[in-house]
Amino acid sequence: MLNVALIGAGFIGRVHARCVAASETARLEAVFDVDSVAAATLAAEYGARAAGSLAQVLDDPRSEAVIIAAPSSTHGELARNCARAGKPFLCEKPLDTDLDAARRTVREVEQAGLFAAIGFNRRFDEQHALLRRGVAQGEVGRVEMLHLTSRSQSPPTLAYVAASGGQLRDKGSHFFDLACWIGGERPEQIYALGGCLIEPRFAEYGDVDTAMIILRMPSGALCHLNFSRRTAYGYDERIEVFGSEGRLESRHPVPVDVALYRGDTIRQQGLHRHWFERMERTYATQLEAFVAALTGGEASTPGLRDGLVAEIIAERGVQSLRSGRAQRIDYDFD
Amino acid sequence: MLNVALIGAGFIGRVHARCVAASETARLEAVFDVDSVAAATLAAEYGARAAGSLAQVLDDPRSEAVIIAAPSSTHGELARNCARAGKPFLCEKPLDTDLDAARRTVREVEQAGLFAAIGFNRRFDEQHALLRRGVAQGEVGRVEMLHLTSRSQSPPTLAYVAASGGQLRDKGSHFFDLACWIGGERPEQIYALGGCLIEPRFAEYGDVDTAMIILRMPSGALCHLNFSRRTAYGYDERIEVFGSEGRLESRHPVPVDVALYRGDTIRQQGLHRHWFERMERTYATQLEAFVAALTGGEASTPGLRDGLVAEIIAERGVQSLRSGRAQRIDYDFD
Amino acid sequence: MLNVALIGAGFIGRVHARCVAASETARLEAVFDVDSVAAATLAAEYGARAAGSLAQVLDDPRSEAVIIAAPSSTHGELARNCARAGKPFLCEKPLDTDLDAARRTVREVEQAGLFAAIGFNRRFDEQHALLRRGVAQGEVGRVEMLHLTSRSQSPPTLAYVAASGGQLRDKGSHFFDLACWIGGERPEQIYALGGCLIEPRFAEYGDVDTAMIILRMPSGALCHLNFSRRTAYGYDERIEVFGSEGRLESRHPVPVDVALYRGDTIRQQGLHRHWFERMERTYATQLEAFVAALTGGEASTPGLRDGLVAEIIAERGVQSLRSGRAQRIDYDFD
Amino acid sequence: MLNVALIGAGFIGRVHARCVAASETARLEAVFDVDSVAAATLAAEYGARAAGSLAQVLDDPRSEAVIIAAPSSTHGELARNCARAGKPFLCEKPLDTDLDAARRTVREVEQAGLFAAIGFNRRFDEQHALLRRGVAQGEVGRVEMLHLTSRSQSPPTLAYVAASGGQLRDKGSHFFDLACWIGGERPEQIYALGGCLIEPRFAEYGDVDTAMIILRMPSGALCHLNFSRRTAYGYDERIEVFGSEGRLESRHPVPVDVALYRGDTIRQQGLHRHWFERMERTYATQLEAFVAALTGGEASTPGLRDGLVAEIIAERGVQSLRSGRAQRIDYDFD
Repeated sequence: MLNVALIGAGFIGRVHARCVAASETARLEAVFDVDSVAAATLAAEYGARAAGSLAQVLDDPRSEAVIIAAPSSTHGELARNCARAGKPFLCEKPLDTDLDAARRTVREVEQAGLFAAIGFNRRFDEQHALLRRGVAQGEVGRVEMLHLTSRSQSPPTLAYVAASGGQLRDKGSHFFDLACWIGGERPEQIYALGGCLIEPRFAEYGDVDTAMIILRMPSGALCHLNFSRRTAYGYDERIEVFGSEGRLESRHPVPVDVALYRGDTIRQQGLHRHWFERMERTYATQLEAFVAALTGGEASTPGLRDGLVAEIIAERGVQSLRSGRAQRIDYDFD
Repeated sequence: MLNVALIGAGFIGRVHARCVAASETARLEAVFDVDSVAAATLAAEYGARAAGSLAQVLDDPRSEAVIIAAPSSTHGELARNCARAGKPFLCEKPLDTDLDAARRTVREVEQAGLFAAIGFNRRFDEQHALLRRGVAQGEVGRVEMLHLTSRSQSPPTLAYVAASGGQLRDKGSHFFDLACWIGGERPEQIYALGGCLIEPRFAEYGDVDTAMIILRMPSGALCHLNFSRRTAYGYDERIEVFGSEGRLESRHPVPVDVALYRGDTIRQQGLHRHWFERMERTYATQLEAFVAALTGGEASTPGLRDGLVAEIIAERGVQSLRSGRAQRIDYDFD
Repeated sequence: MLNVALIGAGFIGRVHARCVAASETARLEAVFDVDSVAAATLAAEYGARAAGSLAQVLDDPRSEAVIIAAPSSTHGELARNCARAGKPFLCEKPLDTDLDAARRTVREVEQAGLFAAIGFNRRFDEQHALLRRGVAQGEVGRVEMLHLTSRSQSPPTLAYVAASGGQLRDKGSHFFDLACWIGGERPEQIYALGGCLIEPRFAEYGDVDTAMIILRMPSGALCHLNFSRRTAYGYDERIEVFGSEGRLESRHPVPVDVALYRGDTIRQQGLHRHWFERMERTYATQLEAFVAALTGGEASTPGLRDGLVAEIIAERGVQSLRSGRAQRIDYDFD
Repeated sequence: MLNVALIGAGFIGRVHARCVAASETARLEAVFDVDSVAAATLAAEYGARAAGSLAQVLDDPRSEAVIIAAPSSTHGELARNCARAGKPFLCEKPLDTDLDAARRTVREVEQAGLFAAIGFNRRFDEQHALLRRGVAQGEVGRVEMLHLTSRSQSPPTLAYVAASGGQLRDKGSHFFDLACWIGGERPEQIYALGGCLIEPRFAEYGDVDTAMIILRMPSGALCHLNFSRRTAYGYDERIEVFGSEGRLESRHPVPVDVALYRGDTIRQQGLHRHWFERMERTYATQLEAFVAALTGGEASTPGLRDGLVAEIIAERGVQSLRSGRAQRIDYDFD
């Protein structure tokens, strides 16, 4: 039973709290949030300790591990603090506010010899994981093309956009990570094209709401990604891998499979309404993987370097968006 | 190149004429119909000889084989005439007007040592044939349940009903044959229940427009059939085989696979509108099998005994419909 | 917050306990089981009171409602005891060991003026409920045919079979209820045919493992059901309604929608492995409906009479199985 | 009845011959090919005149229209000859060997006031046409993203590649045309990335076998295309349109819908094996549209300018492939 402290009592913090509470291998020990009322409420709900300060989490031996679910701008500092305090942690992405800071964070955590995971929860989606296993087992042969689609149901607020780092970092990093993980290699070039087709005001923040991207992999494989901030038909996330021996597809599941045959059409029920309905289960699986890694099991969770890689790709993607030119991607580590 | 004479220039006669004309192994040699204008028109269309009498077909050595596509009530006599004239033939079902006559016809044709096929064209549907091959190869293990569905798009005219022999003979015989062919055995018992839910006037002809049937096979396997004379969504024909090792399904294909995702539904294009759109291709495949059987190839077409078996089942089905009791089925031959 | 006592700490009792614990409208107050260790363990797990006797449940005002999840043979007596104690209850099916007893139980509960629900959890399946709503709203017009399929993944033990009342009562009653609920009418006739195709020893208990049934409804609509105790491909439950204006289908959902295109086939992931995976969520929804009915909301849960109706149909079905003849169904109440 | 002359008796010429022969509105009048034996054979097969020279086609008043199905390198000159002879024509793509020549051809034909069509047969695919109609009727609202996929089943020979103009011209032009036709606008920029992942020797001809492309439309809409010269699972062609109000998809149809449920997978039959099986029917529809346009019906066939537009896009695509940079596209006409 791993005693877990949670930092951050907002939406995603509550998701983590619920997962820890429902887990048979972890226990919610403490909750901290700068909003002490939110922390106290959440702690009470799950019988956990409400920590009055960050120190009451990091310096307290009762907490064996930390989940960082605070605002993005604080991730890096919190991660480094965990490293100093010797607390292994699972940190929501992004790792830090900019690449230099993220690199420093990775270095500090690695020097501390600490186990740390980045919250790329989509790797724990049962469908995506099955697809990846198929690719790894050679079911499609040599990978030649990848296609990743992610289209959210409704656009975020301007306030969210302002703090998000932009679509390529905010949404993109999840899918850049999936592309690397599934394809088994890191892209060496990115070309990104986008625009504000849904909400022109996103442009004021240098952001786009619709984007298409092509990555070139060292093997020569090509990877297409497309993102949208709004659909008229629910949450649309799909992955397709095309290879020399076949094609694997993680499709958009239809959660309620009822169909009406009438006239010259068939009317089926549609997709999950919201990304969270589609992805909710990944948080529990992600937690189990984190706990397993800490308690001697096999560590199969994405690490901080995976987070850094995704941010590097996103960064070069933004440069491509702005310059209109393909950008070479270097990973100045390893 | 087999020279084929066609008897009957109505709808289904024209279908056969088109198939023969398009075939690379057969040639339309002659056409006969009691309506000599129809015969002449159809013959002219495909460059065939318009026979002025039945004798001009049966006694003319230029015709090597006959397709019988005349009205149902004339099938038996035409078949026996072919037998006497030594012309192998493919006869549209039913074989004859009643069971005794059909038995006599089979006997005469067999005594003449003549090759003859019955027009159970659905055996040549690519889907059904693939399903049957799967069953024969053991893909579902031992067969335990079969389900056959056939629902036509619009009810026939009363005149058609009057001459049809009723739903169980007219439509049913095709599916009783499929059940035997796929299941590899003949039912020993039938229970049928039906009613006039669509067109009450069918009752005046002792007919039903909606029926459900259970067959019991000697192996213990159970077979469900359901028929309707009208759907609001096109032609619906499906077969399902459930066995100890799996389930095989010949589904209703969607000929135009376009889908609209919008709101909380997905709208797909529907089924084939009409049975003929769904089944058209079977006539060409059936013809090739008939020609192959006559020209030394492997004979895999249903024979007159298959036609007789289906009619026996239909007959007992009608008795069950009327009596409200399951009927034992005996096949007093073999 | 409704305080609920649970009677029965076996598999299905534990399912109910978990639902109550997770509910925001109910609280697990007490657990009773003749196996006091099982009761104590389950009670401890969810912070509930372990009742030492049935009286400690029924006579204790802290329990406001009861869930009866004890062995089938005890349902009736427990239900009558609840009635006497004035405790509204939700009782797993079947209502009682035989029809006379079940009728007496219904009468006693109704005379006590008590709210009571029967555990026909499948009515709370999101798919089936949506299908039923569509039928009620006229999406398929007048209902002409229904098809219900339920095939379990692996056969029960002989001990289970011995106590189950047989396939038509044990499994069938759920689907007879669905047929009535969806079709909006009660069948007036049943014909059932079955056999032991999977496990010959079931015959020693007068049971079958494979069955096909036709119900005739007062409107003339026909209803097919088919049951199997074993599949080679997971749990297969489907409902189809065919009407004058269209066809509605509650299909077997594919929980993990990953497909491999390779050679001349497409390999998809299959169905839910076990009925419980498919139906788990219905227990929570059923509970919410029960609580809502008790706390002033709209009562949309199946009642004891629905349980009785299903048992009457099952009873006549067994008579049909044995006699080989269709049986008229009378509901001597209302 | 339009009397049609065919120039070219190779594979695609034979396809056209068959369509004309089967048509009820056109008649195959003459066939010409530099290979006079091929021309004579094909002419004999369909009862047409074998022309001994091009002049015997163009100067003969019996031919009312011409289908140009000769090798690509001869298209432009043949088209100009038709223009001079006053024969309306349907020309297989590409229009000419290079853009300047193609522009000259368009100019000459337009000055001759002649009706001429380009063989973009995919516009006549029932699925794509239905999708396009849906877009035009606003079913997806404003178009924001398009996705076009075309993956052939087996790579062409090196000889074919040498004469093909490369993947972007040979295969690409069809899909560039579809993108314009469906999206209702012409791209203003193209970025293309590709490689020889299947057959390294294609590189010797400056060609690629795998490519990904992004087009930017004047409206801001983004369009992805991906091409491959080989799949392990048949012919894969799909189109998807994402808009503000929904998503329309022309999926890869499954021609034989048979499925096996067994273990934890479902095995369906796969896609069409070859592009021609998938697209065969478009040739007949294309012919009908051409005849209709010539005989006073509504002209809805793609014209020479559509061919030119697609070639301009392909040309800029090749420049992008080679330079690694996005290319602006100007259409210096209109």
